[in-house]
Amino acid sequence: MNAPEALTELIAALRCLPGVGPRSAQRMTYHLLQHDRGGAARLARALDVALGRLTHCARCNNFSETELCARCASSQRDAGQLCIVETPADLNRVEQTHLYHGLYYCLMGRIAPLRGVGPKELQFDKLIARACDGQVREVILATNFTNEGETTAHFLAERLRAHGLAVSRIARGLPVGGELEHADTGTIAQAFQARQPVV
Amino acid sequence: MNAPEALTELIAALRCLPGVGPRSAQRMTYHLLQHDRGGAARLARALDVALGRLTHCARCNNFSETELCARCASSQRDAGQLCIVETPADLNRVEQTHLYHGLYYCLMGRIAPLRGVGPKELQFDKLIARACDGQVREVILATNFTNEGETTAHFLAERLRAHGLAVSRIARGLPVGGELEHADTGTIAQAFQARQPVV
Repeated sequence: MNAPEALTELIAALRCLPGVGPRSAQRMTYHLLQHDRGGAARLARALDVALGRLTHCARCNNFSETELCARCASSQRDAGQLCIVETPADLNRVEQTHLYHGLYYCLMGRIAPLRGVGPKELQFDKLIARACDGQVREVILATNFTNEGETTAHFLAERLRAHGLAVSRIARGLPVGGELEHADTGTIAQAFQARQPVV
Repeated sequence: MNAPEALTELIAALRCLPGVGPRSAQRMTYHLLQHDRGGAARLARALDVALGRLTHCARCNNFSETELCARCASSQRDAGQLCIVETPADLNRVEQTHLYHGLYYCLMGRIAPLRGVGPKELQFDKLIARACDGQVREVILATNFTNEGETTAHFLAERLRAHGLAVSRIARGLPVGGELEHADTGTIAQAFQARQPVV
């Protein structure tokens, strides 16, 4: 008296989503079949289209439907600045500041020795080749301030400087609206060390 | 400089899953495209197959690939008992006891006035017709002991008794391994009211 195969297979297939365990997968399956068949059909189509069309931009490594993504192909961006981020989501956050007009390189990850992700898995050679195109004046490291992001930044800084490139790191300090009372000690220490002259 | 359409569409389509907000949908999308393209392809296929094959069993209303599900079509089950549950997940839990050998009816929901779910939305007429097939001797209400599950049980009991059917409700009390010290007052009160003679 087993459940229909199409049902158990959908429950199993949903487990490929990060953070979805057996119970969530079951709940999602029943919800889709009972209340949102239209949504399920749309999702199936979107997955197919995304798998068929999306590859990585040859220059910035972000997802793209074309060989070069719109940003890398644009003449509006400053080819002298290259900002390195871990993920497309981080890239979007930087774009939302409307402050940076250079180009990007998306690592699609970070150095994580415990999970077996090193410079080779992240294709650092592709990044070095990209940074040494002769146009880049400054490389801005915008990886996260987590242990893994910091390790990645240190490692990249060394490699990039060895190729004669100017390398900078985005600033660490108190966030806008931040209060000393609620900031952690490490952040306050950093904010003191990186203090700027008032002009 | 918008993201590729196939990417934004997949992020939007994943929002049809219950409990998935914009951030989760983005994380899931990047994960699938970067680390699990095989899983994404499998999910797209599973959705298509499930949508194409699964309907509701004509007798028990549970998901089925055939007009009658394997359980309803079986001669091994006691057609004199009909257990009413809210969801296929609840049905599976009852089956796991290996104690019940009757048939089921799956409501695929519960009365929820605040969300506009009443007897009509739950197709109670279909259930009443099923229960009045002349074979059913006892209807066992196994809806949850939540407010909505209790309301559903009370409502159904009235309707079913009006058709001359014997109706019972699964017992409420302390769980196996339960300790009075940690049980809530309502549960202890119920356990006292429903006490059984020791033989």
